[in-house]
Amino acid sequence: MSDSQPIFVAVIGVGGVGKAFLGQVDSLRTRLEQQKPPIDLRLILARRSNKQVFAEGWKALEIASLVQTLDNSKQPLLPFNEVIDKLATAPGKVILVDNTSDPTLANSYPAILQKGISIVTPNKKAFSDSYELWSDIFAAAANGTGSSGHGYVFHESSVGAGLPVISTLKELVETGDEVTKIEGVFSGTMSFLFNSFMPVGGGGGKFSAEVTKAKDLGYTEPDPRDDLNGLDVARKLTILARLVGLKVQSPTSFPVESLIPKELESCSSGDEFLQKLPEFDGQMDDLKSSAAKEGKVVRFVGSIDVPSQSVKVGLEKFDASHPIAALKGSDNIISFYTKRYGSNPLIIQGAGAGGEVTAMGVTGDLLKVVRLLQ
Amino acid sequence: MSDSQPIFVAVIGVGGVGKAFLGQVDSLRTRLEQQKPPIDLRLILARRSNKQVFAEGWKALEIASLVQTLDNSKQPLLPFNEVIDKLATAPGKVILVDNTSDPTLANSYPAILQKGISIVTPNKKAFSDSYELWSDIFAAAANGTGSSGHGYVFHESSVGAGLPVISTLKELVETGDEVTKIEGVFSGTMSFLFNSFMPVGGGGGKFSAEVTKAKDLGYTEPDPRDDLNGLDVARKLTILARLVGLKVQSPTSFPVESLIPKELESCSSGDEFLQKLPEFDGQMDDLKSSAAKEGKVVRFVGSIDVPSQSVKVGLEKFDASHPIAALKGSDNIISFYTKRYGSNPLIIQGAGAGGEVTAMGVTGDLLKVVRLLQ
Repeated sequence: MSDSQPIFVAVIGVGGVGKAFLGQVDSLRTRLEQQKPPIDLRLILARRSNKQVFAEGWKALEIASLVQTLDNSKQPLLPFNEVIDKLATAPGKVILVDNTSDPTLANSYPAILQKGISIVTPNKKAFSDSYELWSDIFAAAANGTGSSGHGYVFHESSVGAGLPVISTLKELVETGDEVTKIEGVFSGTMSFLFNSFMPVGGGGGKFSAEVTKAKDLGYTEPDPRDDLNGLDVARKLTILARLVGLKVQSPTSFPVESLIPKELESCSSGDEFLQKLPEFDGQMDDLKSSAAKEGKVVRFVGSIDVPSQSVKVGLEKFDASHPIAALKGSDNIISFYTKRYGSNPLIIQGAGAGGEVTAMGVTGDLLKVVRLLQ
Repeated sequence: MSDSQPIFVAVIGVGGVGKAFLGQVDSLRTRLEQQKPPIDLRLILARRSNKQVFAEGWKALEIASLVQTLDNSKQPLLPFNEVIDKLATAPGKVILVDNTSDPTLANSYPAILQKGISIVTPNKKAFSDSYELWSDIFAAAANGTGSSGHGYVFHESSVGAGLPVISTLKELVETGDEVTKIEGVFSGTMSFLFNSFMPVGGGGGKFSAEVTKAKDLGYTEPDPRDDLNGLDVARKLTILARLVGLKVQSPTSFPVESLIPKELESCSSGDEFLQKLPEFDGQMDDLKSSAAKEGKVVRFVGSIDVPSQSVKVGLEKFDASHPIAALKGSDNIISFYTKRYGSNPLIIQGAGAGGEVTAMGVTGDLLKVVRLLQ
């Protein structure tokens, strides 16, 4: 209704995802304002590690020029708990958008939700660190077991970016299907590396050369070891396993295969690591040729076997005709095997990384919360 | 909250989908009752063409024995508009679950929504008949442009059964992505027929034999011509095209290729049709061998090209490596090409027909409405 209260949005983090989100939320805001009945969505806070802009008198900040406003801001950087306290006094509902991967911020989610502030975020840390934090978050959330005055929490982009992975899994579980297995390629970087290193039909370069290429194309973290250690995939598996009811304690509480040779773990920089990686190409070549002999390809996958409560991350061989083998570029693929879906899984596939698609999951979650708060 | 009003559910249709839905909603009801805060979901009406059971005093009907209760019911079958009038007097919000494919029922959706009753349904007719009916439904719905006292409408299972097709497309559109093309196999029957008739790698039987086999396995309508005419796929394409903003007037307002030979359109029965179909196997064999010469396979697909506003349904050839060619069993596959997803589409794949998976989409929609009504 036109006389309804505004909904306030506070954004933390204005990096790649954050900037893409700002663009998307600016269009969304316009559409919500024009719909009948209109919704008044107001961005009232933007904050990054060293700067913040809090709107005067709960008036909307101009989104189009927000990054510049933030750059030029002379506002004192309030301690984060004071920011939350101030947000809790807003004359309407507040949604906090955490576009960082900050674990400290994640630790304060339960307290934020209890204050009635909703959270949408691609921040994996919050949902893949200790099981205790996970429990505390959902005990505090209105869409967990928190009371109805509490905030909602949505985190679609924490797995597979904007792909509808978490919403689909939740719906399978909530409508009473029995999920038996989840399997897939959960890292855009790993997808690109292995699709290039060992494409179906043969070819592909040395493993170290593919890693260097991936880094040059911006597909890896600044230090590629942060991808190759498998922890990013382990975090995503932790989240999905918990959503099907497994009490996974942490992303290091199950087997995770690292692709960093032991000898290179102690390299002082990513560059030194990349320089020495070719010495270990022989091991990867052996793996490649042993798979090829069986007519298979090697991929870096994560899987959850629900009945045996087994979660693992690492290299596996797949037939050339398997959907995981046929993946292209840096796409993710997630297969849900369930009782209802029978022998053929429900599959979701597509870009699982990148600013715009990650931001899309965040914007979509924001819209879900807006509708629940209306 | 424990003292919140009950949410009332009225079910029309207790066929294959309807029965599966009842099983799912019975479990859902128990879970909602046990959650904190509990939600009191009460099934208060079941109705099919010749029987109805309306609960006394808005008390919950026992779901486990509902089909039997309905069979034994001696309640007079009220005219449908009187049922709606009575539901509108319920002491709480009402959700109507239409598990039929009845076009008459579909025509009354706008009036039902205006009375504040929400609708969840797999009924394709409501969303694929005239564009006027589509406009009227969404003008009346609270999640269309209707006012906030009106009912919500969700219809995930009208395309791809329980696969998250409609919710994903809506999110792409609502978060501002630009959908350029949608392509896929939208019929479980057509999928099975062509995956059997022309599997990747060769083989497969005569087309008429595959149709008979599909019918024997229960994969076709009682008269297989109701699948082979392409209208079911055309209805699904109509719905998706309208969701991306194309004003498709009806499922017959764009090119739809029928696989029923002209000469057999007038057969008096499905059996007579199946008897005469082998006379036309030569045409399908020619198609198969011409595709094989190009290293391709033939599939029955639907596609929407958004910039040119072109929608079409019919046979197309695909490379053996294309995801559409690699489909298995009676699976559906839907590819969304968008600006954000770039050259590789967002793909959703899996069983797109069957009582349990169709009911799952309905139950999932019910849960969405419950959360919006809370």
